[in-house]
Amino acid sequence: MKPGNTHLSGDCRAISHVLARIGDKWTVLVVNLLGEGPKRFSEIKREVGGISQRMLTLTLRALERDGLVTRTVHPTVPPSVEYALTELGLSLRVPVQALGEWALLNQHTMADARRRFDAAAERTRGAIASRVT
Amino acid sequence: MKPGNTHLSGDCRAISHVLARIGDKWTVLVVNLLGEGPKRFSEIKREVGGISQRMLTLTLRALERDGLVTRTVHPTVPPSVEYALTELGLSLRVPVQALGEWALLNQHTMADARRRFDAAAERTRGAIASRVT
Repeated sequence: MKPGNTHLSGDCRAISHVLARIGDKWTVLVVNLLGEGPKRFSEIKREVGGISQRMLTLTLRALERDGLVTRTVHPTVPPSVEYALTELGLSLRVPVQALGEWALLNQHTMADARRRFDAAAERTRGAIASRVT
Repeated sequence: MKPGNTHLSGDCRAISHVLARIGDKWTVLVVNLLGEGPKRFSEIKREVGGISQRMLTLTLRALERDGLVTRTVHPTVPPSVEYALTELGLSLRVPVQALGEWALLNQHTMADARRRFDAAAERTRGAIASRVT
């Protein structure tokens, strides 16, 4: 690696790590949901359709470990556990939503590009095959 | 999945797909680099330190397929191939950089949170072990 790349590579490692952490589908869903306000485990499980008990536990624990979510046990009977975004977690919603909006706005343009690319690749293969036969 | 979740889930799928595409370390590096202007394959390979010929070929091909990068063959001897961001690729730099800036700004806060979380988990294990023995 060239010395001139050090800054770029450092940036990239930080970006890659964050993307690897938040790029997960469940993480994005949970962070977006907790943006509405604190929620209990059972509420999150119900509102994020299709997530298993174990996967939600792992997702929330990873978010808590990264300092993005707090976990509060209320001494009710039975005890209820509430999850909320920290200030850091709330600040993450801004760039995540910007990327989400870009994705929503451009998903069809990207899908069209992929279709055109695949059709062109198919035509090229066809042209080569007809020349060969 | 509840009917009320349809919109959120649609958003999430779009976000997940985009994150899966751009969350890759090499993709982020190549998109950032091409933000400076069009580059030849050999330039990109040199400036993105540590990427293999094959990985760069795959990364550029995926970006071209998604309509984020154009590939232009110049009829020089030998032919030179130049890659450039499309308008769509240029627009992607805005949210990617926002996320990158968030990552740079908050990477140490996240790392500190992880250390505190792991230390607390370690203390809990220690307390349980000393009670058992």
